[in-house]
Amino acid sequence: MERRKNLKIPEVTIRRLSAYLRCLVRAREEERNVISSSTLAKNCGVNAAQVRKDLAYFGKFGIRGVGYYVDDLYADIKKILGIDRVWKLALFGVGNLGTALLFYKDFLKQNYRVIAAFDIDPEKLGMGSIGGIPIFHPDELMKVHQEERIDIAIISTPVSQAQVVADRIIQANIRGVLNFAPIRLDIPEKFVVKNVFFTNILDNLVYLLCQQL
Amino acid sequence: MERRKNLKIPEVTIRRLSAYLRCLVRAREEERNVISSSTLAKNCGVNAAQVRKDLAYFGKFGIRGVGYYVDDLYADIKKILGIDRVWKLALFGVGNLGTALLFYKDFLKQNYRVIAAFDIDPEKLGMGSIGGIPIFHPDELMKVHQEERIDIAIISTPVSQAQVVADRIIQANIRGVLNFAPIRLDIPEKFVVKNVFFTNILDNLVYLLCQQL
Repeated sequence: MERRKNLKIPEVTIRRLSAYLRCLVRAREEERNVISSSTLAKNCGVNAAQVRKDLAYFGKFGIRGVGYYVDDLYADIKKILGIDRVWKLALFGVGNLGTALLFYKDFLKQNYRVIAAFDIDPEKLGMGSIGGIPIFHPDELMKVHQEERIDIAIISTPVSQAQVVADRIIQANIRGVLNFAPIRLDIPEKFVVKNVFFTNILDNLVYLLCQQL
Repeated sequence: MERRKNLKIPEVTIRRLSAYLRCLVRAREEERNVISSSTLAKNCGVNAAQVRKDLAYFGKFGIRGVGYYVDDLYADIKKILGIDRVWKLALFGVGNLGTALLFYKDFLKQNYRVIAAFDIDPEKLGMGSIGGIPIFHPDELMKVHQEERIDIAIISTPVSQAQVVADRIIQANIRGVLNFAPIRLDIPEKFVVKNVFFTNILDNLVYLLCQQL
């Protein structure tokens, strides 16, 4: 398996690879050895041709008339996506959403480990840890980062704190940012930022609903 | 402003319209009358040509050399997206994530109103309400729906409960579903389902990080 050179992979393909990976996780849990492109497609809400096209970006996969070896495809997609190693996450803002993310079991199934949580609330700091994950004051970010090498920062603070936290993340040079605060943050281009804006997702859902009615 | 006929609008355009709308909300808060396509673009992380192209799907907007009238464009985009009226949401699963969504202030800024929450936990049902929103047992869904006409169901239950809840939503014929449980649900095609899978979003972020390194 080798990625074809000079080929720009559409982001939507990357998103689907991630969906295929989830199906393969389940197939492994069910101890299946082989999966057909049509089964994979059906479980992910796309068609079989799409699955084959997506995988073709990265070389030759599967055997005609048989399908894909589950373990092989699982390992290959993990490698393509870069999640064949552990990624260390730090979470900023231990409110309801932050707590939900700390306990999000699906992260643990993959190679995502939340290794530290940060908050400014004395009450939360007083708890020392939550679900086994230590809680620090943001002032301690540099120290924690030097010891642990944080890969990705998750921002789940209120809007009012999000840029303050982002500035600390920039200063620490943590290159990946997953932002849940409903505000577009001012972060230099060399950082990779993904925003999860629930309202925008609802807008999109509503638009599709209106098209149907 | 009239939508051009026979034109399929790309989903990514719809997502950007939603982002433009957020910028216009802020511009209104700042009492600005006019906004240029370049300012709008900069605030949304795209370029001005993209803004003009996206809006062109829906007719003529703005004045050359001046920009867009903030109030007009705000009203027009709301109309395009279908959020020029109130949308009633019901939330299933009042855990940490559910609670975060109940208190999500950005919903209220728009026309999204969570009007009921559902849970099976006797302790939560005993609370009666949370943040002013009544909590019901899912057995009462039909009754609540008959009274309130729920437009969109949000699923924030554990994975083990998500399909059970989805089946109730299907039975009640609530056509919009926003699913946060990390599992692909079995829901007929006439329903509009949006999944928010945090792990897939992280996969995407990691892929982009790997491309940069």
